[in-house]
Amino acid sequence: MADTTQLSNHQIRLASRPVGLPTHANWRSTTEPVQQPGAGGLLVKTLALSLDPAMRGWMNEGKSYIPPVGIGEVMRAGGVGVVVASENPQFAVGDHVSGSLGVQEYLLLSQDQIKRNGLAKIDLRLGSLTQWLNVLGMPGMTGYFGLMDVGHPQVGETLVVSGAAGAVGQTVGQLAKIKGCRVIGIAGGAAKCDWVVNTLGFDACIDYKAGPDAVRDGLKEHCPNGVDIYFDNVGGDILDQVLARLARGARIIICGAISQYNNTSAVQGPKNYLSLLVNRARMQGIVVFDYADRYHLAVAELAGYLRDGRMHSKEDVVHGLDTFPDTLLKLFAGENFGKLVLQVADA
Amino acid sequence: MADTTQLSNHQIRLASRPVGLPTHANWRSTTEPVQQPGAGGLLVKTLALSLDPAMRGWMNEGKSYIPPVGIGEVMRAGGVGVVVASENPQFAVGDHVSGSLGVQEYLLLSQDQIKRNGLAKIDLRLGSLTQWLNVLGMPGMTGYFGLMDVGHPQVGETLVVSGAAGAVGQTVGQLAKIKGCRVIGIAGGAAKCDWVVNTLGFDACIDYKAGPDAVRDGLKEHCPNGVDIYFDNVGGDILDQVLARLARGARIIICGAISQYNNTSAVQGPKNYLSLLVNRARMQGIVVFDYADRYHLAVAELAGYLRDGRMHSKEDVVHGLDTFPDTLLKLFAGENFGKLVLQVADA
Repeated sequence: MADTTQLSNHQIRLASRPVGLPTHANWRSTTEPVQQPGAGGLLVKTLALSLDPAMRGWMNEGKSYIPPVGIGEVMRAGGVGVVVASENPQFAVGDHVSGSLGVQEYLLLSQDQIKRNGLAKIDLRLGSLTQWLNVLGMPGMTGYFGLMDVGHPQVGETLVVSGAAGAVGQTVGQLAKIKGCRVIGIAGGAAKCDWVVNTLGFDACIDYKAGPDAVRDGLKEHCPNGVDIYFDNVGGDILDQVLARLARGARIIICGAISQYNNTSAVQGPKNYLSLLVNRARMQGIVVFDYADRYHLAVAELAGYLRDGRMHSKEDVVHGLDTFPDTLLKLFAGENFGKLVLQVADA
Repeated sequence: MADTTQLSNHQIRLASRPVGLPTHANWRSTTEPVQQPGAGGLLVKTLALSLDPAMRGWMNEGKSYIPPVGIGEVMRAGGVGVVVASENPQFAVGDHVSGSLGVQEYLLLSQDQIKRNGLAKIDLRLGSLTQWLNVLGMPGMTGYFGLMDVGHPQVGETLVVSGAAGAVGQTVGQLAKIKGCRVIGIAGGAAKCDWVVNTLGFDACIDYKAGPDAVRDGLKEHCPNGVDIYFDNVGGDILDQVLARLARGARIIICGAISQYNNTSAVQGPKNYLSLLVNRARMQGIVVFDYADRYHLAVAELAGYLRDGRMHSKEDVVHGLDTFPDTLLKLFAGENFGKLVLQVADA
């Protein structure tokens, strides 16, 4: 058992609820001494954190699929870390784990909290630490179960995915290719689009920043028979453009709506939603936690694709816990290229 | 074979495409001599026509689930009639039929058109002529298959249906009660709400005209555990209010959006659509024609409920082909009480 009594824990807490984009004023840094775990408990050192669009929702007051982060609480974040002290026979010092670690350097867990925070050992032979936050982590699970359980991809169908170079998008598109779909990505900028086509092997990628009609024209060009599956990470105008090009019997997976998360006015509803009627289509939401009892199956399948080179995984790694307030904003500006990861410690 | 050569056929044709609510200027009356059917053909005399919200959509240019009515064409309408001349062995003079008859007194059909117009004999022992336009007709089929095939009602679930006193709504609500759901209607005005509760046996009915917060407050009161199934005939604000109260795993059947059909600006998209994500819910469109090969099964089941008194059927019957332009508007003002039927002839 390492002596952890000299360690201090640097943390980022939610100071106030943002209106629109979060600013520095919404955050507060604290430093606390690190405690030793009690019977059945654990002390985990954070190595890397997952920065996700969903975080913006957790900062708001009000009911959602999980409770909001309370004012004054350490900001919620999924991450990967290493056990540095253990009073629990299921975890040994040196074990790598993933779970809800929070934006902080250390997390002390009681026995109850181990389960509540979803702590699970991860096997670095299946993927790197950052891959465990990407294809093998929540984004990968979200993409996997959204595509497979809600999208029901069939060979030869046309799938469109927005946020194609992002964490969920890259898993969805590559997995859909493996399942025999034609895959069209939507991403911001030529560099992302080139990577999505040339490295990930999508059939095409539409650069939504290329002009006001880029998405409409791109969908028309690349989806001449309509869109069978749309995996939506962005909402807003792009959702409306895809609705206007649905094939009969289409499935839309509502995974997120990053274009709307920082709105100071109402969310933009999809004005073309009656395309669901005309095309006998459906639009369905997904929350990844519902599939927790099958994560291990998806991890095993996806790790196989990583190993045999059929799937690539790209992370955009930024270093330093204190950069969190600024790094998070990269998501909303579309500046991250690949899964956005905050590296907190090296080992 | 009756001598039909002295008959004339009065018709209502689409003269121009409306902007907003249709006006008299959008219609043109014509009178033509009635021809005798050719080999394999039929002459049908219209008895009653179904006036439906969907008619407004058919008047617009552009792709939908069926082609628009062309300028100068007889307005499309489903109806019931009687065969007055037949050169087809499958139909005898005096047979009652339903199908796409058009807003006119007579319809001459070639053998090909008999199938294309969906002509089918109807059995007046199963229901009256007007019931064949209501519970046993397209609205009933729409309600039946939307509820059963898309809604998947489970005993004890809470179903909300808008347009509850209308043609589709009355079938949906009564059928959901028979299937064991708690049923909350939404309708306009106390008279309709009273009828829905006291005659049809819904558990409650919300009068959306009772005040600006009536729907929100009514849903809160009557759906304390959320809405499991929402059968949407209206769209607009009411759809948004229901989205805000979905139960986990809810199903929304998109059948229509009468509040939006006469918009001169864009359709109002459901700004609360992200409730689909939070609640793992889905929203799915239905077009009744897809279920044509199972109509007979639904008719048999629904006719049984009419016969044993478990289901009521209310039609709002207006007389006279020439009233069509004004009568149609009753739908968009919510003035019809029950299925709106235009009686064209008595027998």
